Amino acid sequence: MGNTVKVGVIGFGRRGKGLLSKVIAKMDDVEILAICDLDEGELEAAAEIIKAEGREKPFCTKDYKELLAIDEIEAVVINTSWQTHAKLAIEAMNAGKYAGFEVGGTGSLEECFQLVETYERTGVPCMMLENCCYGRSELMVLNMVKKGLFGEIAHCTGGYHHYLPKEELLRDEKHYRINEYILRNCENYPTHEFGPLSKILNINRGNRMLTLSSTASKAVGINQYVRDNFGSSHPLANARINQGDIITTVIKCALGETVVLTLDTTLPRPFYSRGLSVRGTKGAYDENTRTVFLEGMEEGVRDNEEQQREHYEHPIWKNYEVKGGHGGMDWLVFAAFFDSVKRRVNTPIDAYDSAAWMSITALSEQSVALGGMPVPVPDFTKGRWTKREPVVLGKYCLDEICE
Amino acid sequence: MGNTVKVGVIGFGRRGKGLLSKVIAKMDDVEILAICDLDEGELEAAAEIIKAEGREKPFCTKDYKELLAIDEIEAVVINTSWQTHAKLAIEAMNAGKYAGFEVGGTGSLEECFQLVETYERTGVPCMMLENCCYGRSELMVLNMVKKGLFGEIAHCTGGYHHYLPKEELLRDEKHYRINEYILRNCENYPTHEFGPLSKILNINRGNRMLTLSSTASKAVGINQYVRDNFGSSHPLANARINQGDIITTVIKCALGETVVLTLDTTLPRPFYSRGLSVRGTKGAYDENTRTVFLEGMEEGVRDNEEQQREHYEHPIWKNYEVKGGHGGMDWLVFAAFFDSVKRRVNTPIDAYDSAAWMSITALSEQSVALGGMPVPVPDFTKGRWTKREPVVLGKYCLDEICE
Repeated sequence: MGNTVKVGVIGFGRRGKGLLSKVIAKMDDVEILAICDLDEGELEAAAEIIKAEGREKPFCTKDYKELLAIDEIEAVVINTSWQTHAKLAIEAMNAGKYAGFEVGGTGSLEECFQLVETYERTGVPCMMLENCCYGRSELMVLNMVKKGLFGEIAHCTGGYHHYLPKEELLRDEKHYRINEYILRNCENYPTHEFGPLSKILNINRGNRMLTLSSTASKAVGINQYVRDNFGSSHPLANARINQGDIITTVIKCALGETVVLTLDTTLPRPFYSRGLSVRGTKGAYDENTRTVFLEGMEEGVRDNEEQQREHYEHPIWKNYEVKGGHGGMDWLVFAAFFDSVKRRVNTPIDAYDSAAWMSITALSEQSVALGGMPVPVPDFTKGRWTKREPVVLGKYCLDEICE
Repeated sequence: MGNTVKVGVIGFGRRGKGLLSKVIAKMDDVEILAICDLDEGELEAAAEIIKAEGREKPFCTKDYKELLAIDEIEAVVINTSWQTHAKLAIEAMNAGKYAGFEVGGTGSLEECFQLVETYERTGVPCMMLENCCYGRSELMVLNMVKKGLFGEIAHCTGGYHHYLPKEELLRDEKHYRINEYILRNCENYPTHEFGPLSKILNINRGNRMLTLSSTASKAVGINQYVRDNFGSSHPLANARINQGDIITTVIKCALGETVVLTLDTTLPRPFYSRGLSVRGTKGAYDENTRTVFLEGMEEGVRDNEEQQREHYEHPIWKNYEVKGGHGGMDWLVFAAFFDSVKRRVNTPIDAYDSAAWMSITALSEQSVALGGMPVPVPDFTKGRWTKREPVVLGKYCLDEICE
């Protein structure tokens, strides 16, 4: 324990290298003791990024168990593929190390329960590094909700509206995500939008998800993209794709709120959006039209978010230096994680939050397969959501506004 | 049969009087032979509107059976409350008169089947006068869909986003709609958005709705509005309201498309919207951001609908004089109805369309009560949707583009 955090980092695909170069290796209070990747080339590239910042070359290994065996390491950052986040986080916690892992859902409810069980047994915290919880608009809206400006919240929406074929899915042969699209059919990326909504709705702390239902549209976008860009003889031009182009997920919460999530990644669209909207008895927010609507405003108002930000910016954005990737939110979520490690407190996105958010993917897969039948959402807190306090107060807390 | 249509009109509440003064009484090819309302004052007011247009005073009655008994009347326009549309339409068809009726859902599936049965038995057409099918944006999008500009359609949205408490629900004591909000909980007004989508998706003509699921949020908006505007001692300030503030309905179609409908009438919001969006393999439309996105456009485009309209305006809007209420669409839907009467052909929104659209309300009520369980949507065409042709070609047809 001290003024720096000693970390190991696992996984240096595109996202892992980006986080290393723009965030982790630029943080003065972080010492990178070890790095791990299965690919020797990526591992070498990661070591070069670290050295380029004037740091010592860390211990490099293809075996994450070697990294976890290093006593001095206090926290592990996991930037691997979706399917390995929970497994590696669980092993890190078992090794006594704070586990921070990249976003993504999971196909396995069992894994979500294991994450929580490991936290409860070891007492070692973990944290999904959900950067969008620290997005500027998301934090402004959270701030406004906590101040009661929208009144009682009844309904929210969120989405991952990001046309992926050219940027992600088919960029290179080895990208793992396309395989998820070929074989599965579910809300495969719920946390960018649900993470912030979960904090807005106090999920796991006075509220919880009760049921979830997901409905998939037909899958025609990827085939069309491949035919248009690679020709009809490409193996994916007419291949069966299981993943529906649009997955609509409706969640009902214990306090009666509904949440609609939209996965929208394989049909052309004009702009990226996380589709955040919040509706209460006193006002509304809508990301797509960039509109804040509050008591006393005239009907017809639009596109006034920028202007309203002056009044309602969240203290995290007002008070702290914001740097790094994705408009600063990558920096903030890592700062929040390392701050928890330094103070030896629980994380602002804890094991219960992480498990609940990841479970949406597995539950939506069940519901899609059942024709949109609502399925029960497990209560990972085992009933304690009725009286759980905010897990940790402090400058990066998402459960209370601490100015 | 001739160059004019002889009509009877039933129902002169606010909507009925508005349609009479702005549309029906202004149409040169319409003769108003009889009018009917239970309220003598409204009946007199309607007669005055008609006389003010230099027309003869029509036969006035409080008993619609007297109106239906008039041989010369070819068509009946029904502007009554939601609960009586189907009943009166069925009686009009049984009396051999074309039945045009205002929009709204129904709580009774049985009534939808009866509407179809009556049409099939009598051969007399009916038509839900769904003005939004003739909305300018809706028709432009329909035109673009029929031309294939969006490619294969996979997903659509629509909504009735209209904050009603001050304008409709609580305007006067006698307004019937508030009672629906107190007692029922369902997608109570689906046709403004689903009508146009039904034409876009070829429902009943090569496609159909398979399942529908609806989820209701808590109901807190009306109580809050009443407390804020009429004080805590008003009977509705703390009364139990059954109707959830937001009802989310997800429909799965036979060809794999999903449709999401949102009823949004009791929480404050910045602007009215019908939330139309269409997503296909080649492009997208979004009403809220007024954006058309087509192949070859740069990502980041927004708010270009006005500009695109020059290229894609529907022939109905290009070729015909557009007058009357709600930006012209009221005029167009009545012109379409009377055109069918004059030509003795089926209506562009026929008995099958009307029944299917109205059934959404009854089905959503079932699904909400079952916690969002998907319920099967009846096939009112009895399997004939697989080969039904557009019901009527002609200048007001919504199934084909006839330039």
